Amino acid sequence: MEFLKKLTEIEAPSGSEYMMKEFLMNYINENKSGWKVQPEIIEGEDFQDNIILVFGEPRTAIFAHMDSIGYTVGYENNLIKIGGPGAKKGALLVGEDSQGRIEGELVTEEDDHQFLTYSLKFNREVERGTTLTYKSDFRETDEFVQCCYMDNRLGMWVALEVAKTLENGIVVFSSWEEHGGGSVGYLGKFLYEGFDVKQALISDITWVTKGVEHNKGVAISLRDSGIPRRLYLNRIKELAKESGIPYQLEVESAGGSDGNALQRSPYPFDWCFIGAPEDNVHTPDEKVHKNDIKAMVDMYNYLMARL
Amino acid sequence: MEFLKKLTEIEAPSGSEYMMKEFLMNYINENKSGWKVQPEIIEGEDFQDNIILVFGEPRTAIFAHMDSIGYTVGYENNLIKIGGPGAKKGALLVGEDSQGRIEGELVTEEDDHQFLTYSLKFNREVERGTTLTYKSDFRETDEFVQCCYMDNRLGMWVALEVAKTLENGIVVFSSWEEHGGGSVGYLGKFLYEGFDVKQALISDITWVTKGVEHNKGVAISLRDSGIPRRLYLNRIKELAKESGIPYQLEVESAGGSDGNALQRSPYPFDWCFIGAPEDNVHTPDEKVHKNDIKAMVDMYNYLMARL
Amino acid sequence: MEFLKKLTEIEAPSGSEYMMKEFLMNYINENKSGWKVQPEIIEGEDFQDNIILVFGEPRTAIFAHMDSIGYTVGYENNLIKIGGPGAKKGALLVGEDSQGRIEGELVTEEDDHQFLTYSLKFNREVERGTTLTYKSDFRETDEFVQCCYMDNRLGMWVALEVAKTLENGIVVFSSWEEHGGGSVGYLGKFLYEGFDVKQALISDITWVTKGVEHNKGVAISLRDSGIPRRLYLNRIKELAKESGIPYQLEVESAGGSDGNALQRSPYPFDWCFIGAPEDNVHTPDEKVHKNDIKAMVDMYNYLMARL
Repeated sequence: MEFLKKLTEIEAPSGSEYMMKEFLMNYINENKSGWKVQPEIIEGEDFQDNIILVFGEPRTAIFAHMDSIGYTVGYENNLIKIGGPGAKKGALLVGEDSQGRIEGELVTEEDDHQFLTYSLKFNREVERGTTLTYKSDFRETDEFVQCCYMDNRLGMWVALEVAKTLENGIVVFSSWEEHGGGSVGYLGKFLYEGFDVKQALISDITWVTKGVEHNKGVAISLRDSGIPRRLYLNRIKELAKESGIPYQLEVESAGGSDGNALQRSPYPFDWCFIGAPEDNVHTPDEKVHKNDIKAMVDMYNYLMARL
Repeated sequence: MEFLKKLTEIEAPSGSEYMMKEFLMNYINENKSGWKVQPEIIEGEDFQDNIILVFGEPRTAIFAHMDSIGYTVGYENNLIKIGGPGAKKGALLVGEDSQGRIEGELVTEEDDHQFLTYSLKFNREVERGTTLTYKSDFRETDEFVQCCYMDNRLGMWVALEVAKTLENGIVVFSSWEEHGGGSVGYLGKFLYEGFDVKQALISDITWVTKGVEHNKGVAISLRDSGIPRRLYLNRIKELAKESGIPYQLEVESAGGSDGNALQRSPYPFDWCFIGAPEDNVHTPDEKVHKNDIKAMVDMYNYLMARL
Repeated sequence: MEFLKKLTEIEAPSGSEYMMKEFLMNYINENKSGWKVQPEIIEGEDFQDNIILVFGEPRTAIFAHMDSIGYTVGYENNLIKIGGPGAKKGALLVGEDSQGRIEGELVTEEDDHQFLTYSLKFNREVERGTTLTYKSDFRETDEFVQCCYMDNRLGMWVALEVAKTLENGIVVFSSWEEHGGGSVGYLGKFLYEGFDVKQALISDITWVTKGVEHNKGVAISLRDSGIPRRLYLNRIKELAKESGIPYQLEVESAGGSDGNALQRSPYPFDWCFIGAPEDNVHTPDEKVHKNDIKAMVDMYNYLMARL
């Protein structure tokens, strides 16, 4: 969990994934010698800040987004959302501009039309365009881990756990997922054209709801705002059933993921969102049950070997 | 009309087009020997559940979507919309899960925020993720046909009528049109790269409105939420005028089709929506005038030979 | 400014860019002999109504959209918006149908749900699907130019000023920017696949706001509804600083441009919106300070040589 904690401390909101990329590349280069199969590592300017790891003869790709929600500083410490942050006033925000480190408090106010507006309480005016993220406060009990950015540092963490023993498959670390997307189109293009890979699993974190609870297993989403192809879902459901790994079937009306972007891309991708559920979505207090994390790793290992 | 009736009975909401694909492939293989030109049939895993028929030397493609609106069963028989179904409470819904056939009634309730919520009245809890569609109740008079899913089983039916005598052209049966799209990007890619085809006609059903009435001819849409290229519209308007076939020019502010998805694709497609108008859109009682259906077939035959 | 005036008089709302294309092609062919480098001119049916100019060994492309907001005539002189026009009642609208020239007044009315509806006051019923634009009323003082369609005839004008001395780079004139996009995907594809160009500057006009004022320099947008890649922004900010040219950093929560479409395309484009600010956005009275126009031309010249 120490590595997960480190991931939550990296300040990489949508658009600033290069911060995460640097950290990840170091991690991968230091650790890959212990992995079962040495992946081909694909990155560089034609891939912006994304990383693709290709293991053996791939049939299926795991997509884990690197970016987080956050805020852009506008004029006079006014804040503009990156993605959909849900923190309450008083939340601690951190960042950096050319004058140095920033740590301040989130202030919320209702404007004349009862819309909430956001600003930063800090002892000086922060430079325009500076990005802020939640200050990491990692908490661990026997049962739970809790911190900002379980979404999606935990999804990345699971993908890296799977990488340790993955024989055939692709792991993609993607960008802009929290803010309208923008990388998955060309990443999908590269996978489809380069490796004939058109099956995807979306390693991301979902919501605890009436139908999906803590400690009931990893959630396999049958739909959210997007609707995956039924034939692909049916294969996954069958494998999940035979696996013996704890899982819950999720059916949601809202929300989306890199899966939606893959579906809209001009490539015939099948996709399915599979992830542990969390409480307190998009706040500094995202909370996930450890058993659900274990089930998530196990399910990815099982499916990547068989899909 | 017997064949149209059969099409309305197939349960293929967005994501489950494989049900329709199977039926269509059987129909095509049984009937194509009677067609004027034998098409090349393109389908398979690189095309998900879609079908492409290529006749002769194509210049223009007809897109007819196979999917319908419907519902996904969530938790405790709660229903989530697929596309924008508009049925009133009491509508009959059908489907199937591992425990057997389902036929129940649509129940609507206002929640605390005066939003309508939907559920299924049935004698047991239906499995999560099961999809439901309207029960087909096909009605025919001298003047009208009426049933669920005229949108777009009638658009498919017209495309198959045109296929009987088509010499040069492409017919595409597409997916997910009712729920955000997802197939037209790569189908368009295949047409453009494989056949240099970049002209499309969208065979779909539109709305009876103040400006578009029953029995006044097929509607040629000059815009909806999307705006086609004027130079293409001008050619179509000219051909329509010289054809002598009854038609109405439509101008709408809302609604969309596979045309919007073609426009957003990274291929230079021109598109125009041409279809008969219906009453009671997206309900079990969609109603179309037979003369408008005839005009629709005639107009497609005329345009496909000349565009 | 005489040429800018002419540009504002061309009636080319989204979908009707062919009107502008014709004018531009004439201008380019008549003037290019005086340009420092003769560009390759790319246009034709595979590019719809768009034009691409390729100078030398390009690394970066300027995108300037040709279309404007406006209205489509529906039934009984009812008007439907093209993009987001913001004119008040009484604004003069012009266009043409098969019966001749049209010049009438914008009428606005509240419907039963307090929504504004729009219609045209004119002495006859205009044909369905006819498009209308603002009547150009070009005003110039020592400090300001004011007219409809500074957005984006001024963005085009700047691109053509830059073209005069451009040695290495691409200038793209694009379509449908005001109404959901539709050309930038395949234009980006062509640039990336044909020239390995994946850096874009969006030559468009932005808003005077609390943070961006008249006569304070060209605005460099760090975000709007879309978030560009931080590493690209950082390079631009550094070059802008060293240039000595007046500029303002902009941070907005809303609005979009061809940049958003490039980001959603399946190609790894970096983009940044750079443009002079205007008052009275999307009305017949868009007003821009001449010093900001000069700074805009200077900044593009500086960046195109160095990015």
